Formats: sequence, C-alpha cells, structure tokens
Amino acid sequence: MEKFINDDFLLESKYAQELYHNYAENQPLIDFHCHLDPAEISQDKHWDNITQVWLGGDHYKWRTMRSNGIEETYITGNASDREKFQKFVETMPMLLRNPMYHWCHLELARFFGIDDVLLSGDTAEEIWNRANDVLKTLSAKECMLRSNVEAVCTTDDPTSDLQYHKEIASSDFKVKVRPTFRPDKAFAIEDHLSYIKYLEKLEKAADIEIRSYDDLLVALKRRHDFFHENGCRVSDYGVETIWHKKAFNYEIEDTFQKAISSSEKIAPEEAAAFKDAVLRECAAMDCDKGWVRQLHIGPLRNNNNVMFEALGADAGFDSIGESNYAKALSKHLNNLNSAGKLGKTIIYNIHPKDNEMIAAMLGNFQSSDFAGKIQLGSAWWFMDNLDGMRRQLEAVSNLSLLGRFVGMLTDSRSFLSYTRHEYFRRLLCNILGDEMQRGLLPKDTVLVGQIVANIAYNNPKAYFNL
Amino acid sequence: MEKFINDDFLLESKYAQELYHNYAENQPLIDFHCHLDPAEISQDKHWDNITQVWLGGDHYKWRTMRSNGIEETYITGNASDREKFQKFVETMPMLLRNPMYHWCHLELARFFGIDDVLLSGDTAEEIWNRANDVLKTLSAKECMLRSNVEAVCTTDDPTSDLQYHKEIASSDFKVKVRPTFRPDKAFAIEDHLSYIKYLEKLEKAADIEIRSYDDLLVALKRRHDFFHENGCRVSDYGVETIWHKKAFNYEIEDTFQKAISSSEKIAPEEAAAFKDAVLRECAAMDCDKGWVRQLHIGPLRNNNNVMFEALGADAGFDSIGESNYAKALSKHLNNLNSAGKLGKTIIYNIHPKDNEMIAAMLGNFQSSDFAGKIQLGSAWWFMDNLDGMRRQLEAVSNLSLLGRFVGMLTDSRSFLSYTRHEYFRRLLCNILGDEMQRGLLPKDTVLVGQIVANIAYNNPKAYFNL
Amino acid sequence: MEKFINDDFLLESKYAQELYHNYAENQPLIDFHCHLDPAEISQDKHWDNITQVWLGGDHYKWRTMRSNGIEETYITGNASDREKFQKFVETMPMLLRNPMYHWCHLELARFFGIDDVLLSGDTAEEIWNRANDVLKTLSAKECMLRSNVEAVCTTDDPTSDLQYHKEIASSDFKVKVRPTFRPDKAFAIEDHLSYIKYLEKLEKAADIEIRSYDDLLVALKRRHDFFHENGCRVSDYGVETIWHKKAFNYEIEDTFQKAISSSEKIAPEEAAAFKDAVLRECAAMDCDKGWVRQLHIGPLRNNNNVMFEALGADAGFDSIGESNYAKALSKHLNNLNSAGKLGKTIIYNIHPKDNEMIAAMLGNFQSSDFAGKIQLGSAWWFMDNLDGMRRQLEAVSNLSLLGRFVGMLTDSRSFLSYTRHEYFRRLLCNILGDEMQRGLLPKDTVLVGQIVANIAYNNPKAYFNL
Repeated sequence: MEKFINDDFLLESKYAQELYHNYAENQPLIDFHCHLDPAEISQDKHWDNITQVWLGGDHYKWRTMRSNGIEETYITGNASDREKFQKFVETMPMLLRNPMYHWCHLELARFFGIDDVLLSGDTAEEIWNRANDVLKTLSAKECMLRSNVEAVCTTDDPTSDLQYHKEIASSDFKVKVRPTFRPDKAFAIEDHLSYIKYLEKLEKAADIEIRSYDDLLVALKRRHDFFHENGCRVSDYGVETIWHKKAFNYEIEDTFQKAISSSEKIAPEEAAAFKDAVLRECAAMDCDKGWVRQLHIGPLRNNNNVMFEALGADAGFDSIGESNYAKALSKHLNNLNSAGKLGKTIIYNIHPKDNEMIAAMLGNFQSSDFAGKIQLGSAWWFMDNLDGMRRQLEAVSNLSLLGRFVGMLTDSRSFLSYTRHEYFRRLLCNILGDEMQRGLLPKDTVLVGQIVANIAYNNPKAYFNL
Repeated sequence: MEKFINDDFLLESKYAQELYHNYAENQPLIDFHCHLDPAEISQDKHWDNITQVWLGGDHYKWRTMRSNGIEETYITGNASDREKFQKFVETMPMLLRNPMYHWCHLELARFFGIDDVLLSGDTAEEIWNRANDVLKTLSAKECMLRSNVEAVCTTDDPTSDLQYHKEIASSDFKVKVRPTFRPDKAFAIEDHLSYIKYLEKLEKAADIEIRSYDDLLVALKRRHDFFHENGCRVSDYGVETIWHKKAFNYEIEDTFQKAISSSEKIAPEEAAAFKDAVLRECAAMDCDKGWVRQLHIGPLRNNNNVMFEALGADAGFDSIGESNYAKALSKHLNNLNSAGKLGKTIIYNIHPKDNEMIAAMLGNFQSSDFAGKIQLGSAWWFMDNLDGMRRQLEAVSNLSLLGRFVGMLTDSRSFLSYTRHEYFRRLLCNILGDEMQRGLLPKDTVLVGQIVANIAYNNPKAYFNL
Repeated sequence: MEKFINDDFLLESKYAQELYHNYAENQPLIDFHCHLDPAEISQDKHWDNITQVWLGGDHYKWRTMRSNGIEETYITGNASDREKFQKFVETMPMLLRNPMYHWCHLELARFFGIDDVLLSGDTAEEIWNRANDVLKTLSAKECMLRSNVEAVCTTDDPTSDLQYHKEIASSDFKVKVRPTFRPDKAFAIEDHLSYIKYLEKLEKAADIEIRSYDDLLVALKRRHDFFHENGCRVSDYGVETIWHKKAFNYEIEDTFQKAISSSEKIAPEEAAAFKDAVLRECAAMDCDKGWVRQLHIGPLRNNNNVMFEALGADAGFDSIGESNYAKALSKHLNNLNSAGKLGKTIIYNIHPKDNEMIAAMLGNFQSSDFAGKIQLGSAWWFMDNLDGMRRQLEAVSNLSLLGRFVGMLTDSRSFLSYTRHEYFRRLLCNILGDEMQRGLLPKDTVLVGQIVANIAYNNPKAYFNL
C-alpha cells in the first residue's frame, strides 16, 4: 500500500503539485490567530509523551472520544496517559472522513516521522513508543522553528501583563510572538459576580477605579495602548451575534450600573446593546492604531450544564449558533465607516449559511485604504475541514477577490497544528490545479502560482505588517 | 446503449465497486422508520396493476405530475389506472436529475426485472404489460422477503390496538414488524374540534377519563407501556420547530383546559409551550424504557387550502419550513440531559441549512451510555436525493463520527421502496471509494469496508436492538 | 498554451460537447429580464472605447475595483477612460475564480474577437487598441443581432411613456423589445418626500388624482393596461422579504394617508403590510392578463451611507439580506391561489440558503393551467456564478422539474452580457454530459438534448409567449 501521507497528498493533478511545491510549500507561516500559551513558548515546553502534547488541552479530540462512547475517565479523568492514548487511537477508524483523521496523520508524519502506519488500536503501542522517543528532542520552540513559523499572534486578555511576550521579544528566539487584544470578558455583563471580579482585575491592570461606563472605556484604552507598546497589532472579539440597534449612552450607563451594583437582572437586549457599544468603542481604538480587528461571530457555548459544572468552559461542549444578522452587520460596519473608524477587519462566521452573506457584505465597505481591507476569515472551528474550507473559498472567490485573501490560521492550542497551514495550502493548490486542468482557469502556472504565494504568505505579511 | 441500471450503477471506481459488492450489497435491511400499513403486511396485499402499487398513495409522484401540468383527474381523480400510468410515465423525461427518475428505474429493475427500457410515453404500454404480469406473483410480504428485510418499524398512533402487529408477530412471517409510538395528535391542540375528538379515542384506548393535563400524561404513559409490551422500541415526533422557553405546569394546564373546553383560541406561543411540555414528558418515558427517540423537525404542512379542502392532508402539498432553533434545541437536549432523561435520539431536519448546526449540537450530548447515542438522521423528505444525502454525510463525517452512523431508512408508504437502501448504500460506497482512489482515505478496503458494513447493518442492529 | 476561451470551454466530456453544440449553441435568446435602456436600443448606441461599454454603468465591476483598493477617481471619478481601463484590467488577476474573470474573457472573445491574450496590466494597451477598433462597427443593435436575440424584456417604471418601445416596435428592428411593469416606487412608502414626488408623476401618467389607496390602485391599473397595450407581458417586484400578515383595508388606507400627509413616521410593520397589499393587488392584475409575475426577494440595498450620499443608488453597495420567509411565502401564494389570482410566477432569491425552500414551495402551487407554472428563477446577482447556478439547478432538479425550467436571463445593463446565456448553457450541458458519462443519466443524447433545448429556448418561448 502506498503511503497515506505522501508528497502529493491532496494534490490530484500535475498543476496542483506544481503550484504547491513551487509556490506554497516553502513559504513561511504567519499564524495570525492562535491560542498558544506564551508561557509555554517562553519556557520552551517539553512533553513526556504524546498524550500530553496531543490530548492535553484539545477539546476537539475529547468530543470525538465522547461521541465514540468512551468514558470521561479516559478523556479528562484519572486514567493513565497510555490508557488515554489507547482509547483515542481506537476511535480513529470511526473518524474516517473527519478532518481529525487527516490532521492526526499529518502531525504524525511531519513531527514524528511516522508515515508508514495508520492510527488504530493495533498500532497504538508502536506509535506510542516511536512518538515518545521523538519527544525527547521536540520542544515548543522546536515545533515552531521546524514549521518555518515567522510570526504568531496569541490571544490575550486586556489584563495580561504580557510578561512572557516581553521575555520572548527580548530573547534570541527568531519567531515573532505577538499578543492579541481580546476583551470578551469586559463585555460579559450577564453574570454579575464574574463581571465584578473581572473589573477588579482590570482596575489593577489599568490603574483606575471603574465606577462608570466611561471609566471602563478609559481602562480598556489604557490596556489597548499598553498592548500596542508591546507589539500588539491585532484585536479579536467573540460575539454570539451582531446587535442591530444603537443604544443611547445613558442606556448603556444604566446597564453598566445594574451590572456593577448587582441590583437587577440584565435583560438580553440590554446586554446585547451594551456589548455592541463596547464593540464599537474598541473598533475605533483599533482603527486609530491601524490594527487588524477580528470578529468571531456565532458560537453557542457551554450547551451541556452537567459537563460545564464538572469541567468548566472550553471542554468540548460548544456548538454552531444561528441568527439572521445581515442587517445588523450592515449597520455595524456602516456606523463605523460613517464615523471614519472602520479599519482592517476580518469576519469569521460559525454557521456555513453565512459565508455568502458576509462575503457580499464586505464588498460594500472596501476602500482604497488597503486592497482587501475587509476580509471573510478562513473557515472556522466546525467549518475547519475540507468541505468548510472549500465553501469558504467558493464564497471568497465568487463574491470577493481571492487574490487578496489573507488565508489560513491555526486557531489552535497545540504546537503541532502548524500542519493545518500545509493542509489548507494543499487544498487551495488542489482546487486551483484542478480548475487549470479542466480549463476553468488559464493553464498559466506563473499567473495562478502568484495567487497561491499571495494567499500563503504575501497577503498576510502585508496585511498584518507585524 | 449500456443498461441504465447496471451492476455498477453509481459505483464509479473500482474501490466503490469492491466496497459495495463485498460489504453492503448482501447486508439485511433494518428499516427503522416507515409508513407501511401493518394491515397490508398482515393480509399480504396484492395489486392488480402497477398504478396501484406505484401511484396509489404516493404523493411524491402526484406532486411531480402536477408540476408537469397534468390534470387532477389523472392524479387522484377518476381516470383509469392505465390512463394515470400513461400520464405519469410521460412526466418521466421531465424528471431527469430528479431522484424519482432513479427510484422508478431501480424499482422497475429490482422488482419487475425491467432494466432494458427507459420509462416514457412510448414505452408505457410495454412496461404496463410486463409489470402487471409480474404483479401476479408479487405480494407485500414477497417484496419484503426479496429485499432481505430483517425488521421494519411502522408509524402508529398511541390509540392503535396494534392488532396487525400482534397477528404478524404470531404468524410465521420471518420479518420483524414493530410499531413506532407517534403521538403527534396528542400535541395538536390548535384545532379544538379535532383535538377533543382525538382525546375521546385516547380515553377509550387508555381506559381513563382525560380531564386534565396530568390525565393526558397518564393516558399516554399507559399506551407507551402497551406499545412496549407489543415490541415497540422506537418513538417519533413531528414538530414544526423546537420551542425555546420552558413553561410552568399551571400554564400548560391552562392551555389544555382552554383546548378541551373550546373556550378560547390558543395563541401560537401557548400551543408551542404545550407541545414542548408533552414532548419532554414523552422523551422521559422513552428514556426510561431504553427506546430510540426520533425528532422530525421543520415541515410546513398543507400549504394549499384549495387542495386541502379537496384532498385532505398528506396529498403532496407540504414544504420545507425554516426557523432558527439552534438555541432552543440546545436547551431542549440540555434539560433532558440534566434530568437524566436524554436517551438515544435521532434528529431529522427538513431544511438543509440545519445539517451542520444539528451535527455540531449532537457532540455536546454524547456519552458513554452508547457510542453514537445522539444521531443526525439520514437525509429526509425534500433532502432525500443524491445531493441531500451527500450533504448530510458531509456534516456527519466532519462534525460527528461517520463510523457510528445508523444509516438509511425508507420513510415510505410503498413496499417497493426498499431500493432506497440500495441507492443510499451505492452512494455511500461511491463517496468512500472515490476518496480512496484520490488518496483522501487510506487505500485499505478492509478498514473502509468495515465502516460500510457498520452503517449498512451493524450500527442500526446494535442501536435499535429490535 | 491553448486558448483559454476555446470551443469547448466548460465542456469537459464528449457528451457535454455534443449537447452544447447540437442542442444549445444555436438556439435564439429570449432574455426575459434585463435592465437595458430602451433609448439606447432605439437610438442604436455607439461607444468611443471599451471603457464606456464595459465600465460605464457596471457596478459589479466597480465593486471589484474597490475591493482591490483602487481609488474612486478611477472608478466613478474623473480619471480618463484609458486610466480607468488600466486600473480595471490590473484587477483581473486578483479575480481568478470570480465569474467576472470568465465573463470578461468571454465578452472579449465573442464581441471583439480577442481570445489570444489574457486581461492584465501588461496586455491593457494591446486590448484597448484592438477593442476600440472593433467598436467602430459595433453598436447596441449589432450586439443584439450578433447574439441571436429573439426578444428582450426591459425593466420599466409604470410612469414610463414607453416612447422608445413604441419606436422600436414600429421600426424594422427584428428583435422584440418589450417593457416590464416594475412598480417598486409605488411601494416605497417609507421615504415620504420621494414617495409624494413619485405619486405626482404617477398622477400625470395615469391621469387621475391620487388621494386614497384606492386611487393608487386605479392609477396602477391604468398603467398596467397601458403597458399591456404596448406589448408588456411580464411584471417584476423587488422586495426585501415577504410579509406574513394580511392587513385590513382600513389599515392600509391609514398607512397611505400617513405617507401622503407626511404626518407621522411609518413603522416598518406598516410599510411591510402596505407593500404586501399592493403586491397582491398587482399580482391579481398580472393574473387577469395572463402575464408572468417575477418576484425578486431579499437584497439589502445601499449599505454604505457615505457612498450613497456621493453616488446614489445602484452604485455597487448592495448585499445579500436574509430572513426566514417560508411561512410568509406560503401564505402569500396560498391567498392568491384561493382567490383564483395566482398566475405564472417566477421567484428569485438572493440568499443561497433559500434555494431548496422555494423549490419545495413551488410544488404546492403547480397546476394544470400550465406545465411548470411556478418557477424558481435562475441564480440571481450574488449567486450568478458557476457555484450559484449549479446549486440553483440542483434545487430545481431535485425538488421540481428540470425539464420545465425556463432558464437564463442576463439581468444586465450591458449590451455585451448576452454571453451569460452561453455561459449558462455551457454549464448546463457540462453538468448533464458529466452525469451521462458517469451513468447517472441515460447515455441517450436525444433524450437529454431535448431537455437542453427546452431550457435554452422552448420553455421560455412557451412560457412568456411574447
């Protein structure tokens, strides 16, 4: 049997192979959105075994194990690392056609040099031993260097002191590691107790007492400045939907006072209006500093109360939400644009039905400030698979300019996920190569290869300007 | 010209052919959701001509005829069976690319041995004669036996005495014929008159006077028990959408009293809350008995008043509804889960946009009770075609575990529809074989074949445990 | 390098080539919906250079230029035609996979005989010169004649005197040029000032004082009659969504009085109910005269206020809207049907998620009046690309009758867009040919070719009966 992960994996035509090997394969990576822990980079994390690096914090993998009927003890519980590994690889054959089947085999091949066996219960012992052997010399930094990473942007709370970012910046580690300003907790007004606790942290970080909505904005602005001084050039906002009605300032202030006095329950509409207000204020700060703003729209989080109480957030119990926010998004972007505060923006949707709606919306707000100023983000989370990426590329191609697309990111907590860039690039080249072959694109490798190189590297390089 | 329906119909690669012929073709059928009439099975129904068996109650076919401008007299009216057949087959060339074009030719080939002519006005007479000849020896039971059916679940009202199920069970017919508990009429509170009439039937069947909502639940529980004693292991619920707000018991009781006293019109929100309440109560009964619960979400029924008055329900005037029920579905499943009452569940959506939303939602509620406990149902009704099935399989593969999928069902009123299982299996093998060929899946027929065998037979066998 | 636009462009199988060249290529065009200016036809418009004919009023192209970061001066501003051309063709390589890449090269090949170079900054000068040379002998009428156009329907306001349509009809120009009744401005009640101004024009055209809603209907009816006398057989209505609740007449009258007296702001629900009322009245007029009614549902227009103030409407700042209107559409069609006023109807959706919902809805209202009486319109605007057309055809094929589809239209302001019919026909033949090759359709070129010929010409010919 030929190797599953071979040189031309996913590259089904000569054109695709040419495009990939000549225009994509050797491009450096600009991973402009991830969830790596900067401490683990700074301290150059090492792992004892493959379970730690593969299953440690990866709630995608936990979900698939639960779907396969595996008990929680083997997932987040007290079973040994070896047992957990066994249960996970036994799940692999059930995962045929799931992106994880590809991801895992790609990671095995690229980081561990294991490309001659398939993951299954039968091969678990062999892979466990071979992989753990490699891990003796594979560290966090080593993963990044081997993957030809030029820059990463981690995801950070405004209260962070960015200690590790500073350490890395002043070290001789040649990969740029930049923070991202992600103030979601400054929006999360529904839960009084957590919100008040968070404000205390923010007060300390920003060195200001927060008694009013205006104080909150001042605090955020100070942290925004601090992040900028420490190399931050990107922000990120996670919202369930986009809100449609601009509130008056006194209403926002009212809502804020309710929250900090814990006096009354905040209605969903009040919370939504509040979030919208903070979102627009932050957008203006981003614009003023020339940052790239990212909007992640739509997830329903923590759907399973029983498991939330057991394991907390980000444990694999999130989902695709849905709402009709075309008009609200139009107003949101239009308001910023009218105020001269619409900077570079990337919009990521969780529901695949929204690809075309957003891709069309972008076209209303492009400008000569920057070619491809407003972007539809790469297929995200539940859409981060061949079908999802293909549909996202279809929307970008048909309704926007493929040649200006800023491309892929890992969105990952793992140091092994850089292979997702490879996966995306292979898919991109395969689509373009296939269409060259079929006469849908000119059979001009230089013309098409330039687009590949742009999406893989030149576009994000110019867009983020890190 | 080669035969249209040949051995390798839909199987476009050697891998696809191998998978189908070795792992799918000979698997028995577990048709876990259909609308066959148990009386027709018990009495071993015979038909005089192909119009009776093909066009008798098949409102899918009626719709296509109406779309082709055919007068109602040739559809549900007084024209002769021969005339109706003529009009239907004259419609066939207009139906190229419609699933019915495939279904009809498959049924002709498999049950009537007619695979050498295409359906059209010109061939009508020949096919009429040849098919009617075959019908002399083709009965309802014969259809099931020839199709290698192991078990079917019909769809039954709680008031049914299950007389025919009992007769079949005590006969020597080797196919298991089980009822399904489908209490939609016990929900249908909007139409006072019909509802009160229905309650009278339910009172008799359950031997209890129904004066309150609690009485209603007792009655349903008694019928649930009775169904269980008679081999029922599956329930089914048809709803227009999922409701988002849990009502208090006294509100539900109020709504119920309004309905049985015909005193006031019931508001849509009241009806929705009532349905939601009954739905959850029934879900708990299902869970307690270890049944599989099916939810069919979304159709808009009886859209055409003129035709509804002429022909009644289920005559071909239903449609795809749409609503955003992600959050409501999350709450529904979470409430049951928190109460320990979330058993095996299959969710079917009528709108293709919901495939991914539901497939992602499942992942929040899987557990070690059973591998693949919560399922996205096979492509249903308006999505029951190659494109719809492909998209459903894409969502299951990417967002859940394909290897745990319980696969196909006919959802049919006709004894000839078992070929839908063949159709689905061929498509499944074609997709997998194609991806093996292209290197997207390992070229390992045993590995992939096991998945095929699981979906075709092993998974439903274990899941339904009939 | 082989020619990009060659004889078999998009035709990837022998069957596809056979179908196209034998059944589609030479069929006349019935372009039943476009936005050509009848004055330009009547006066046989000539152009000085390719910028005028290509970029003059084409906001699709303007959008792509803005997305590429080009300054407005080169788009709608004062730059020279040569400079604008340069900036546009420099955008072309960024547009790979965008339908415009195909459209532009097809138009270059078909109208200018330029099929040996690709559009880019480097080839701009050559193409500019060669194309302008051709334009010396290429006029509006010449474009139509060379494209084998049999009939076009322009889009006209009820107040139009149809002067140019009359002139063309009485000339010896052999292409039928018919008006379309598009009364959107008679609905647009939200903006008092514009509405009152419009009513003044309508009063003059219809020779009646409009003091009440009933007067408005009389005025529209008179113009409807006038249009009919002048060859109009088609109407068209652009709406943001379909409204769900039938209002009482006195409510509609109230709303109308508010509008004409400018006394109060009209609530969105009032405006929606008003539009719905006018929509149904016009539908009845259409039905009475046997016209084809077109509904264009869903765009969000004028999203960018800054640019709207600078350039006005239809300048490239429109977008895909979204709403859940399945139930409303059902009621709308059912009300008309119950009243005997549901005539031939084509429904176009702006959001791709609605393809299946609408295609299923049609099936509830077909009748023996005409085969394929209710239609899902060809992929429109943001969906007018290979992916969008393919998905529309998938919905029509699976949920309706492909053989009765009335096919393509340009929806265009440009005399060069007739190549869109070619583009659509090639795609259609490619899909069908591919499925013949793969055994999904019978390998019977006469059978399948008939469907091609129907969609390309016979169906619209019979349906519009111009």
